[in-house]
Amino acid sequence: MILDRITAPAALRALTLLERRALASELRQTIISTVQRQGGHLASNLGVVELTIALHTVMNLPSDKLVFDVGHQAYAHKLLTGRQKGFELLRQDGGVSGFPRRDESAYDSFGTGHASTAVSAALGLVRARDLTGGSHKVAAIVGDGAMTGGLTYEALNDAGKLRSQLLVVLNDNEMSIARNTGALNEHLTRLRASGKWLGAKRVVKSGLTSIPLAGKPMSAALERLKTLVRRVMVPGELFESLGFRYLGPIDGHDLESLTDILAKALRANLPTILHVVTRKGKGSPEAEASPEQYHGVSRRSQRRASPDVRPSAPGMDVPEEGSCSRVVGDTLTEIADLDPAVVAITAAMPSGTGLDRFQKWHPSRFFDTAIAEAHAVTLAAGMAAGKLKPVVAVYSTFIQRAADSIIHDVCLQNLPVTMLVDHAGFVAGDGPTHQGVFDLNMLRAVPNLTIWTPSGLDELRDMLRDAIPAARGPLLIRYPKSLPTRAGPPDIRADSRIAILAFGASVCPARRAAAILTDEGITSSAVPVRSVKPLDGDALRQLAASGMRLVTVEECQRAGGLGGAVAEWCQDNSMPAPLLRLGIDDRFPEGFSLDTLRRGLTGADIARAVREAVQP
Amino acid sequence: MILDRITAPAALRALTLLERRALASELRQTIISTVQRQGGHLASNLGVVELTIALHTVMNLPSDKLVFDVGHQAYAHKLLTGRQKGFELLRQDGGVSGFPRRDESAYDSFGTGHASTAVSAALGLVRARDLTGGSHKVAAIVGDGAMTGGLTYEALNDAGKLRSQLLVVLNDNEMSIARNTGALNEHLTRLRASGKWLGAKRVVKSGLTSIPLAGKPMSAALERLKTLVRRVMVPGELFESLGFRYLGPIDGHDLESLTDILAKALRANLPTILHVVTRKGKGSPEAEASPEQYHGVSRRSQRRASPDVRPSAPGMDVPEEGSCSRVVGDTLTEIADLDPAVVAITAAMPSGTGLDRFQKWHPSRFFDTAIAEAHAVTLAAGMAAGKLKPVVAVYSTFIQRAADSIIHDVCLQNLPVTMLVDHAGFVAGDGPTHQGVFDLNMLRAVPNLTIWTPSGLDELRDMLRDAIPAARGPLLIRYPKSLPTRAGPPDIRADSRIAILAFGASVCPARRAAAILTDEGITSSAVPVRSVKPLDGDALRQLAASGMRLVTVEECQRAGGLGGAVAEWCQDNSMPAPLLRLGIDDRFPEGFSLDTLRRGLTGADIARAVREAVQP
Repeated sequence: MILDRITAPAALRALTLLERRALASELRQTIISTVQRQGGHLASNLGVVELTIALHTVMNLPSDKLVFDVGHQAYAHKLLTGRQKGFELLRQDGGVSGFPRRDESAYDSFGTGHASTAVSAALGLVRARDLTGGSHKVAAIVGDGAMTGGLTYEALNDAGKLRSQLLVVLNDNEMSIARNTGALNEHLTRLRASGKWLGAKRVVKSGLTSIPLAGKPMSAALERLKTLVRRVMVPGELFESLGFRYLGPIDGHDLESLTDILAKALRANLPTILHVVTRKGKGSPEAEASPEQYHGVSRRSQRRASPDVRPSAPGMDVPEEGSCSRVVGDTLTEIADLDPAVVAITAAMPSGTGLDRFQKWHPSRFFDTAIAEAHAVTLAAGMAAGKLKPVVAVYSTFIQRAADSIIHDVCLQNLPVTMLVDHAGFVAGDGPTHQGVFDLNMLRAVPNLTIWTPSGLDELRDMLRDAIPAARGPLLIRYPKSLPTRAGPPDIRADSRIAILAFGASVCPARRAAAILTDEGITSSAVPVRSVKPLDGDALRQLAASGMRLVTVEECQRAGGLGGAVAEWCQDNSMPAPLLRLGIDDRFPEGFSLDTLRRGLTGADIARAVREAVQP
Repeated sequence: MILDRITAPAALRALTLLERRALASELRQTIISTVQRQGGHLASNLGVVELTIALHTVMNLPSDKLVFDVGHQAYAHKLLTGRQKGFELLRQDGGVSGFPRRDESAYDSFGTGHASTAVSAALGLVRARDLTGGSHKVAAIVGDGAMTGGLTYEALNDAGKLRSQLLVVLNDNEMSIARNTGALNEHLTRLRASGKWLGAKRVVKSGLTSIPLAGKPMSAALERLKTLVRRVMVPGELFESLGFRYLGPIDGHDLESLTDILAKALRANLPTILHVVTRKGKGSPEAEASPEQYHGVSRRSQRRASPDVRPSAPGMDVPEEGSCSRVVGDTLTEIADLDPAVVAITAAMPSGTGLDRFQKWHPSRFFDTAIAEAHAVTLAAGMAAGKLKPVVAVYSTFIQRAADSIIHDVCLQNLPVTMLVDHAGFVAGDGPTHQGVFDLNMLRAVPNLTIWTPSGLDELRDMLRDAIPAARGPLLIRYPKSLPTRAGPPDIRADSRIAILAFGASVCPARRAAAILTDEGITSSAVPVRSVKPLDGDALRQLAASGMRLVTVEECQRAGGLGGAVAEWCQDNSMPAPLLRLGIDDRFPEGFSLDTLRRGLTGADIARAVREAVQP
């Protein structure tokens, strides 16, 4: 294999064009076979193989700097930068991350994971270069999906006044994760259909600009013509209006011309956008046909089980589990059947959040803002002010982007917006950028906000049915990817010395720990916490008054989480009961498997920690 | 006065054009005299008087909905909607807020305060209308300053695909708070200079589009021509590329044509941008000449004192105070004199944060991102990755918008970015949207982040000198608008029964409370807390071990703030000392004066709370 000879990207420059084309095939095969085995992002990575080869051929990393937006398209980059060995264990403990990481390689100029950060970061690298007299090149690869995030626009607007080298490669693959929505992407993504690239644009631009781009009602024919013109014209104008030089669109799979144009584009001492059209899943017929389905691929071992329900294993330790997003999708749909005021919003995650089911039955009440979490929440606030009952479903790690919208637009005005925070707690495979371990801590201090934490699918369903039609005020319901089908009752034994408070995915280990401890003679109970804000003061008072030692367990940062809330409650209520707070101790969770991530919080770990704490 | 007859905006429609022009003068006089007396936003409000009259003439509030972006330009709106009486006490307790508030008037369709939320909120109102079969009009007024915020772009991109009525009035006044930076605004704000409005645009557009807008080096003459073309052409193209119909620019002070065009623009069943050019401060020669200076005007009584230093009053209770932003500006400048790697970033607040002083001496190392807080922080992360030592100065209430950038871009990568969080704690005059009472609670759970809390200008200076050249890692320093010139030593008496822990503006009241209590025989000490994260464990251990009762005081939410941190520390260290946590009890602080805001946290209040807690 040619790939075996590439220990550093400089080796690319010694290859012929033919060899580099062969290398592209090898990279595709390696990516396909690894992702089939290990899971990971398939379609996005197959789309940028030629682009990555071309960039590494004309750039000189690590002196030059290359920032991948989102970063889920960096597999070819990793394989070309000395990480072939680690790639065999992609997204597994001991292997390489699915995203660029500064602590993994000097070739990873900036770590990413969340969308829309790359232009800001690259501009920072440019300004650092210019102030320190450097002459290296800086480039960012930004997918069209990340273009809908406001952060990209803030950065483009700031970068537009630059008078030095910055290349933004717009990787236009006709979709972000789901099919893009939004006016910009509607236009961007059709360009490839014209098949005429640069030439077509020039022709249309010179010939047809006098046609009004918007205005009074017009004939169907004129409308079609107008649409055609806008589709072909738009990108250049948008970017040039922001101060960028615009080049493209060019074919992102034509290695030869891609390499030439990249080399030229990098020589410009001006902020430059190169619009490259690629095909997601290129080289894998299945992934090309269904790129959304092949956006993220699970490990083969995981795929054996049904994606939604895990059968009950022997013993009480592993209850039957199911997908929270499926429950959300189905239950919201039912609620909306009865209540026409219920609307649902997602930010580019219709299937991830389960809202694709809602969309199917209530298309006119479903809104996908594309990658734009802050807008999704403020939009919901506007809808609530207009007497609707909006539900926003977003992953925990991404709701961090909407903190101010939650505070300033929803909670300050006490508007009935329900936020469904999926993937709360540990998240397998994606690494530290995607852990859902901050939302509770960040938002517990926000007035008017209620925070509920179901620990079973039945409870999640009940909460949705209770809360959404009633629309009482700002509500956040947070839950992991999957939960036991039944939350089960609190198993409080009156003679308990220990009460282990937990929510979500931590209830099962809490129950296990209580069983272990009780067996050992330290009678213990597990207490599922259904509301972290407000806490159930009566229940806490009862536990504390009975002299039980309180233990909290959570897949959240310890600072200010459930444990913090209970510590504060104890102090406020003059019940300074000894409290053991288990959670994440002020570090970013590392590891790719749930087993590794949950180290310290398993049933046995909890039992051990309690045992140590109660022993004299 | 005509204004006296306007008890509701419907009355406007009975007026002649001449009367409405006279009304504009009356509104200006009322705004000028009130702001001179009460303080408030002057220039922005004077700029939109005709626009507000025109909107209320052609719209029918409160059925129709009108959303003011930022909201600091809503004074004329308030005066026209039955709040003339309350306006006499503008921004004072018992009077009207300086921003729209849903709980103040049915005419305030959506509350604002932070920039860039209006299009999202208006789109929410539009979708609510369309789903419920309403036929009312929805409009948002957005200043050009708010156009740099990514949230506006996210919303425009989402709204562009709408096929029903939504009017966005782009109020282009050539600046946001400071002179706008950024490519878009560079162009927008020069339009007025052409003086030709609509006509000019059409002419240039049809005649000159074949000139390349960016590209190879060109002659100076061609460059000038290109710049002219871009300045005149840009706005329409940008907005039309996002799917909006674009109208304008039009003169925002020509009441007659403004009213006509607004009426037409509101009839369109398409998302429409009307570009209106106004002059900030219009009608006040001083404010027109120096709109930044007249952006916010202090109360006359406050202006008597020097803006930076308050002389020491008799008695120990009121130490000499000074402006934190002045210390920041001066100290950063000195540090940067010695260390070329130090750079400073602000988001449209150069004078508010004191960085205007830095900018004067180190212009090439000063970066104003315009209103774009998330970008400011991610940009800083990129600069730090490029070996610079970036400092981002932003108000506490606005750093909420950068939460994810702080977590995902700065702290996860452990990059040495220093965040200077100004206006932390209570903020006078602006109401609940601007209180700095969340940053500490939101960010205390973020790993790798250090949080320092100076309680004197000397300490602030020392912290900057210590931290910025050393660039050890992510650091947040939070401070109120002003602090005592000297922090003073902790006054811990060995025989104290009570230790009152406080930081920032709460240290003075804590000292006062300690003095009161000690006089009463409850010997007490005030303990300034210089680092909330990490806490000084040795000091806490000493206090707790000596049997002192701990009291925490903070101008922050109680949940997860300093008190929460100390409660957690006590539990973790098996020192469940009784703890009294004073702060904001899960509500948005109401009131406009610091006296009102600080109710419950004065020296006497603290002493009373302690007295009640220690009495058996």
